Amino acid sequence: MSDRIRVGIVGGTGYTGVELLRLLSAHPAVELVTITSRKEAGTRVDAMFPSLRGRVDLRFVEPDQAPLAGCDVVFFATPHGVAMSQARALLAAGVRVIDLAADFRLQDAAAFERWYKMPHACPELLREAVYGLPEIYRARLPSARIVANPGCYPTTVQLGLLPLLEGGRRLINTRSLIADAKSGVSGAGRKEELAYLFCEAADNHKAYGLRGHRHHPEMLQQLRAIAGHDDLELVFVPHLVPMIRGMLTTLHLQILPEARDVDFQRLYEERFAAEPFVDVLPTGSEPDTRSVRGSNMVRMAVHRVAADRLVVLVVLDNLVKGASGQAVQCMNAMFGRPETEGLAQAPLLP
Amino acid sequence: MSDRIRVGIVGGTGYTGVELLRLLSAHPAVELVTITSRKEAGTRVDAMFPSLRGRVDLRFVEPDQAPLAGCDVVFFATPHGVAMSQARALLAAGVRVIDLAADFRLQDAAAFERWYKMPHACPELLREAVYGLPEIYRARLPSARIVANPGCYPTTVQLGLLPLLEGGRRLINTRSLIADAKSGVSGAGRKEELAYLFCEAADNHKAYGLRGHRHHPEMLQQLRAIAGHDDLELVFVPHLVPMIRGMLTTLHLQILPEARDVDFQRLYEERFAAEPFVDVLPTGSEPDTRSVRGSNMVRMAVHRVAADRLVVLVVLDNLVKGASGQAVQCMNAMFGRPETEGLAQAPLLP
Amino acid sequence: MSDRIRVGIVGGTGYTGVELLRLLSAHPAVELVTITSRKEAGTRVDAMFPSLRGRVDLRFVEPDQAPLAGCDVVFFATPHGVAMSQARALLAAGVRVIDLAADFRLQDAAAFERWYKMPHACPELLREAVYGLPEIYRARLPSARIVANPGCYPTTVQLGLLPLLEGGRRLINTRSLIADAKSGVSGAGRKEELAYLFCEAADNHKAYGLRGHRHHPEMLQQLRAIAGHDDLELVFVPHLVPMIRGMLTTLHLQILPEARDVDFQRLYEERFAAEPFVDVLPTGSEPDTRSVRGSNMVRMAVHRVAADRLVVLVVLDNLVKGASGQAVQCMNAMFGRPETEGLAQAPLLP
Amino acid sequence: MSDRIRVGIVGGTGYTGVELLRLLSAHPAVELVTITSRKEAGTRVDAMFPSLRGRVDLRFVEPDQAPLAGCDVVFFATPHGVAMSQARALLAAGVRVIDLAADFRLQDAAAFERWYKMPHACPELLREAVYGLPEIYRARLPSARIVANPGCYPTTVQLGLLPLLEGGRRLINTRSLIADAKSGVSGAGRKEELAYLFCEAADNHKAYGLRGHRHHPEMLQQLRAIAGHDDLELVFVPHLVPMIRGMLTTLHLQILPEARDVDFQRLYEERFAAEPFVDVLPTGSEPDTRSVRGSNMVRMAVHRVAADRLVVLVVLDNLVKGASGQAVQCMNAMFGRPETEGLAQAPLLP
Repeated sequence: MSDRIRVGIVGGTGYTGVELLRLLSAHPAVELVTITSRKEAGTRVDAMFPSLRGRVDLRFVEPDQAPLAGCDVVFFATPHGVAMSQARALLAAGVRVIDLAADFRLQDAAAFERWYKMPHACPELLREAVYGLPEIYRARLPSARIVANPGCYPTTVQLGLLPLLEGGRRLINTRSLIADAKSGVSGAGRKEELAYLFCEAADNHKAYGLRGHRHHPEMLQQLRAIAGHDDLELVFVPHLVPMIRGMLTTLHLQILPEARDVDFQRLYEERFAAEPFVDVLPTGSEPDTRSVRGSNMVRMAVHRVAADRLVVLVVLDNLVKGASGQAVQCMNAMFGRPETEGLAQAPLLP
Repeated sequence: MSDRIRVGIVGGTGYTGVELLRLLSAHPAVELVTITSRKEAGTRVDAMFPSLRGRVDLRFVEPDQAPLAGCDVVFFATPHGVAMSQARALLAAGVRVIDLAADFRLQDAAAFERWYKMPHACPELLREAVYGLPEIYRARLPSARIVANPGCYPTTVQLGLLPLLEGGRRLINTRSLIADAKSGVSGAGRKEELAYLFCEAADNHKAYGLRGHRHHPEMLQQLRAIAGHDDLELVFVPHLVPMIRGMLTTLHLQILPEARDVDFQRLYEERFAAEPFVDVLPTGSEPDTRSVRGSNMVRMAVHRVAADRLVVLVVLDNLVKGASGQAVQCMNAMFGRPETEGLAQAPLLP
Repeated sequence: MSDRIRVGIVGGTGYTGVELLRLLSAHPAVELVTITSRKEAGTRVDAMFPSLRGRVDLRFVEPDQAPLAGCDVVFFATPHGVAMSQARALLAAGVRVIDLAADFRLQDAAAFERWYKMPHACPELLREAVYGLPEIYRARLPSARIVANPGCYPTTVQLGLLPLLEGGRRLINTRSLIADAKSGVSGAGRKEELAYLFCEAADNHKAYGLRGHRHHPEMLQQLRAIAGHDDLELVFVPHLVPMIRGMLTTLHLQILPEARDVDFQRLYEERFAAEPFVDVLPTGSEPDTRSVRGSNMVRMAVHRVAADRLVVLVVLDNLVKGASGQAVQCMNAMFGRPETEGLAQAPLLP
Repeated sequence: MSDRIRVGIVGGTGYTGVELLRLLSAHPAVELVTITSRKEAGTRVDAMFPSLRGRVDLRFVEPDQAPLAGCDVVFFATPHGVAMSQARALLAAGVRVIDLAADFRLQDAAAFERWYKMPHACPELLREAVYGLPEIYRARLPSARIVANPGCYPTTVQLGLLPLLEGGRRLINTRSLIADAKSGVSGAGRKEELAYLFCEAADNHKAYGLRGHRHHPEMLQQLRAIAGHDDLELVFVPHLVPMIRGMLTTLHLQILPEARDVDFQRLYEERFAAEPFVDVLPTGSEPDTRSVRGSNMVRMAVHRVAADRLVVLVVLDNLVKGASGQAVQCMNAMFGRPETEGLAQAPLLP
């Protein structure tokens, strides 16, 4: 079918990979061409993920034998460092790239190397990579060759602060931003690490990453770009919650004296009125993560808890709007499809 | 739209109700007309279930003010006893009824009264009610006026035993059937009872219902109908598992001496080959409940654990194939739609 | 045994009640005399809580038939409002009172009435009630007739801020205190409410109480008392975490310019060096709630995340140090026993 | 202290290891001498397990540098195969051995080699090893040099069948025993395996081991020894439940015609009347796993579900009575201490 988007996936055995498969296998405009996995080459996808029986009729393929060059777009659902090693060749073959890892998120190659402990393989491509947050960079997606899909935490923080920062607005003290964020365990990926065992993570709660989290420089870079200035500091404390999917970021903000009369509820509602995947809840709401489970929605609530204090609550499903769903939304925009196509799944509640 | 099925829901505030809403609001051939709740009359559905924001634009309506008579079909997602009290009037108005509770499951009114501790309001309708298991009673659904949607446990037990019992087959000792069944907590409904509190049910496991469970007579009635004889006994032990959705029934069966040469795997595969919602897994498989989470699929595996011993494992999502999804499947069959319409949701894994 | 503390419990069917029973039934200096419950009068305690079989040989007694006047001390593990209605009579009989609810926490009767929507039954006793946080009010406990056991959130916030505020210290901006707190579900009690059902709370996360939480005035009152001034504001945002026990409070604090050279780690270690139940973790630690599960310990970690930013993490078990264990610790202090007596349980990990 | 038992632990970083530490560090007659771990040598035990801060003042030691020869007894909380490689040397040094793994459970070295895929290092010691189920082998423990601590599943199955089988009783059909068993995830150990990740095991349920589980031959060997004959077959189907600790085994049994008049409830109560750690619940009870969480208790209930059908429910904490607690109980018996010493922990509920 000449008008379907031919899609390849590199690294399909993690949670963002199987989530891409769930979404893309039901996408009416997509033809799933190939999926790679070095470790699982030859295995049927639905033998590994029985949830996909009858939906995905592919086997994992050795990366260097996969017909990626014949795809229109390749998603990288891989560890950091893989996409950048293959990007040049794919672009040369006319294939567009959506990276769900961090290779193209930081504009500054030195910052990338500092945080990810590896040299950047194609720093010359960083400038052209589009940061895949359609609510901000929609206009650049149709022509993008490389999309850097945002991290899950950064999506909550950017969308939650967007109405307050963009357009040079002076509403909150940008030197005192606090993001107290909570993530389900799937955010850590499908990795055989002790900390993510059921018996370590269940019935338990903790903060982590207090000595530095890789999403911090990404958030700072992006928030400064949105605000249009660098006078902006962010305290970011991520926490691990014993649930599979879901993320809640609680933003603690200080309202500037000159902004005491602003109607923040209205500001948020207006900013996101036309966004299909951002839902500003009525005043007084307390969104729970299950209200977006399995869907591409972000829900948020704005609380004026004191004259000079704003608390913004943002929830999303870290595997959908926080990863694979956002990537599909970007793909839709890149290929001139409606952004919502293939992303109409209702949240699963309970 | 004259060709859409006009649907009413009575009792939409429980888990089977919100699950019906999730499925029906995305069903291309359905028009959701009304939904009732005495307690929540006037409340917007999406205020109660924010997961449905942008999907369901209705308010709960007082039962006696709801335009049920103008519907093509009414689903009862109510406690036992409600559907039977309204069935006559609805039928008289030409409205078909699908009851997700037990009012029409037992053919014997006396048995109903014994197990449900209430007189039956319309025993004369029991005979015409069709038991809503399409894999068995498909042919009767197009003309059915009343459908008794099966319980979740009975669905697993009937489908798991079907190939062994139907057609008068003599393969297993029918006097020694054992169903050791495990259910997620949502099977108990959205009820304010101590036993289903998070702190009572989480990180815990127990058997229950050992002194008699209402699904037992339903299963016996149905299995005897399938087998064509009454020489059939079933030990049924349900268990509560700390998960939201999901049911696994482990059937322990004794193979008759004359059936030792049967290829049970093949028997199951052939029986269900044409069934869109029954998936017989390859030999040696161990289905997990998440492989069907949020979908209408049943998956099963057949294990010959000894020369004379068969273990059959059956999983489904108790709110979908075990309740609301099955009801929608029945509705499709009743109204001449493809059975799979509106039921293509991929399981949510992880 | 004349030298054992004769103990009565009013309202023993909730989570703080059963936790008191777990602790007191193993306490070498305690004789459990009676336990009341209107609803369960006549029921054996161990029929309701089989975990106590062989440990508690009592039946629940009608409140007005319980021999409370013959006790040395009575614990109220009741809803708010019960202890104050019985306090005068018990005190008159020479019985001391430990209230695990809020009746004696707020010194200001008007504030109590505003937050708890009921008149205070004995405002004249508020002044003599001792706030049961031994780390601060230890000296007053031996002579206390009424102890107001602190709420779980307030315990974390007060202990977490104590070294920074007490003694008139000027280390942090007290007008900008933020407590982002997370609680396990048992903090809500053993109540038949929808929000605490397994299927509502599991695999889910949310903030709540943003429009006002009863622990907020308690915390403000106490923090101002500790600081010795009223120029102190606190943003408090509680969250619900899908775990049974456990509380983590993340304190976001702004260091004053004049305090930039303070060694906060050392400050905390020194302050709590002699405290048997407060454990300051080594620099860089990220305490998890399971490290205190079932025990009376508080663990905390101090993170200097920027030159002017301090993050303090505090964990405890909300049913032990956050409720019943703290009450037993107070009882020990009241009766001249070692504070640690009967509270040596090791945390249960995993 | 000359009269304390000097204890060494080999392999203390798994769940049975940390559970041994929890129990032994509070045991009044034990001196913890050393604990080994190749991987963690040099690490403080309480840095790895902060729950043990203030309780265990040891560092992990390289196995070959640990003063094991100076101990009275060494516990092996190791993978299968380690204890047998060190047993001879320890015995020669006069040190007694308690193995929590399988090295000494199967009396038949060939069976061991078949199921555990390794040659047995000291088959000559198999005969003298005592199977560490005190309820059966108590008399042999005081003189035992090697104790084979039972598996968790076998403990439930043996204790649950003991009153029916021992003494040559003919009460149930021993050719048709069915154990449908459910385990919490900690039973799998602290292993970095995909299947035990939070996101794989949470909100999920499955059967496993249907093609053969290593506990099956152990159970058959033991049950045949108890029954005194080999005419005994067992279908064993283990399941994984999303909880940390806890095991429930549901025994499905066929009552022999000649035993229809037996009072099974009384039979069980009498058999276990003197057992400190076996609690037969009143008729009609449905034990839940949390009623034993963290304690060394077994609770069971006996249900006559039909004239010829018995269902026995057995719960324990797989890490305590199913592993480390049972090992401590054996140690007590070996050294002439009261069996209950150090094992009085109340279950943690909720």
